[in-house]
Amino acid sequence: MVRTAGVSVTAGPTLAVVAREAGVSVPTASKVVNGREDVAPETRRRVTEALDRLGYVRRPRFGASKPPRLIDLVVHALDSSWSGAVLHGAEEAAHDAGLDVVVSAALSRTRAGRPQRGWLDKLTVRGSAGVLFNLTELTGSQYAWLEQHRTPFVLIDPVVEPPPGVVSVGAANWQGGVTATEHLLALGHERIAVIAGPRRRMCSSARVAGYRSALASAGIAYRPEYLRDGAFDESVAYRSMHELFDLPEPPTAVFVCSDRMALGAYLALEERGLRIPHDVSVVGFDDLPESRWTTPALTTVRQPLAEMAATGLRLLLRMMDGEHPEGTRTELSTRLVERASTAPPHRGTAVKR
Amino acid sequence: MVRTAGVSVTAGPTLAVVAREAGVSVPTASKVVNGREDVAPETRRRVTEALDRLGYVRRPRFGASKPPRLIDLVVHALDSSWSGAVLHGAEEAAHDAGLDVVVSAALSRTRAGRPQRGWLDKLTVRGSAGVLFNLTELTGSQYAWLEQHRTPFVLIDPVVEPPPGVVSVGAANWQGGVTATEHLLALGHERIAVIAGPRRRMCSSARVAGYRSALASAGIAYRPEYLRDGAFDESVAYRSMHELFDLPEPPTAVFVCSDRMALGAYLALEERGLRIPHDVSVVGFDDLPESRWTTPALTTVRQPLAEMAATGLRLLLRMMDGEHPEGTRTELSTRLVERASTAPPHRGTAVKR
Repeated sequence: MVRTAGVSVTAGPTLAVVAREAGVSVPTASKVVNGREDVAPETRRRVTEALDRLGYVRRPRFGASKPPRLIDLVVHALDSSWSGAVLHGAEEAAHDAGLDVVVSAALSRTRAGRPQRGWLDKLTVRGSAGVLFNLTELTGSQYAWLEQHRTPFVLIDPVVEPPPGVVSVGAANWQGGVTATEHLLALGHERIAVIAGPRRRMCSSARVAGYRSALASAGIAYRPEYLRDGAFDESVAYRSMHELFDLPEPPTAVFVCSDRMALGAYLALEERGLRIPHDVSVVGFDDLPESRWTTPALTTVRQPLAEMAATGLRLLLRMMDGEHPEGTRTELSTRLVERASTAPPHRGTAVKR
Repeated sequence: MVRTAGVSVTAGPTLAVVAREAGVSVPTASKVVNGREDVAPETRRRVTEALDRLGYVRRPRFGASKPPRLIDLVVHALDSSWSGAVLHGAEEAAHDAGLDVVVSAALSRTRAGRPQRGWLDKLTVRGSAGVLFNLTELTGSQYAWLEQHRTPFVLIDPVVEPPPGVVSVGAANWQGGVTATEHLLALGHERIAVIAGPRRRMCSSARVAGYRSALASAGIAYRPEYLRDGAFDESVAYRSMHELFDLPEPPTAVFVCSDRMALGAYLALEERGLRIPHDVSVVGFDDLPESRWTTPALTTVRQPLAEMAATGLRLLLRMMDGEHPEGTRTELSTRLVERASTAPPHRGTAVKR
């Protein structure tokens, strides 16, 4: 036993001694120590006994191979299928690059929707190799902190327009809004409403802009009463849907800017005795796994969340190597997933000319 | 600049020099460096400029406070709302204890449902302080590896009965099966079927045993044709539901042993033109967030997944401190969440005597 500065290092037997004791080769003993499968049970038993008898203590191979670098993934909350997809994409890409991912939830410890100091402190002490932020809004001082500490970072789906030079990855939200609206137009709808997210959220305003562009291209006038706030909140979307059907001329189709809001919209329609898609068509946005669970199954615009996170991770890796990606915003394309919530307008509710 | 063994250490200005340059106190300069909010914008600007001008490089405080210890959470897959709940609970509890959580998905890199060597190698090199496994099945050699490396670990919801002495946390599955069945009995059902998970899965056999106990207590004979295999798979549950309604005397209520399977069961009933709960009552198990999205909303037995993970984390902490918890299996209670998928049996389909 050697003692150095309070740390005890066991100078135990080498693996060669263990192998001799067990009557096996050193590679075989090594396999057992490393938890490999390709060892006969009887051999494993002999080696394990020898390890115990001799008091062999495996030392981490810090000398030989360096420990995997850690990157941090800060998400708004962990218990959402949204975060699940992001985490899945980031972890896979990190694993491929030999990196480990430390996760932190910012929202649960936030003040006014912004991550608090907890995670910054941890990054300071640990020295993170890089950070991916998903749906977290950073303050000016947090940006300054990251810069001062020369910590590379990438935003996945930034909440608001990030400062110049900040690298981010998002979905093609404008194009998604166009796609959803064109789908309804192609079915023959002309009275198409939209339930939007919060106005200051970049992704939401881009989707609404896409909706307006598609209407304009089709020569259909934009009706302000058909634009409703949903705040990315189920109960706000529920109220907005009721408001739309209280209008003298209600829509025949509604583009709801998130799947979660579509759930509130479905409920309002059910309460009014309106059938989807017979009386009203509904298109969502996101393609969360849950959207499959609704009746009828929701037609929606798919955001490639896992791919967005994987792309963000790969950009982060390049920045960790000292590169600075030229394009500061990368957009991944969205696509329509047609399920059962859209159909041509019903005669009874179609546009009267 | 001091060079030691290939590592360059910048002997830059101290924070006191930066504070003097900026004309602020050292605590104020420290606040800016640490990304704190309570600094006036103008003060922050002055300090930031001084930091840049003097080339101040913040060194991690490895000396003062130790870097947070890392624990590993190995889950079967990250893109499920199940894992989301587990991750949420573990991360919160870890944060409270000042620990960081590294996540790895085992399933995507698995052979025959068992985690492969990738994560073991990473733990070896990094030296994990402890590991939480969720729904991952370990091999004998992986157990041996963990023991040899003196790495404390806890299983959350173990797939099969773990070896003696292994610490695990699960839900009270047997009690949950009793609760689901008693709910249907209380509504007046007597022809109650069960769609089970895989027989070798501990949690599934416990739920089915609970179902049988509740029937026995009510004096209702167990009918083997009412027990169907579901394999925790939507499409198998779909087929099982069809088989139940092909029986000469179909059930009036079905306990489906997971919410995900209930989705397949709903689909089969819809195809047969049977209405839930008018013609058939359905109870699920899990209370995943998705179960709220079905029409009608699913009555189910809630497993406290986040609490299970938090409990596992706290047990792991005690083991990291050298304690060994006495009870090796901790069970957290389940409870019935009544929604809209259960009702008294309809006259037309009720038991004929």
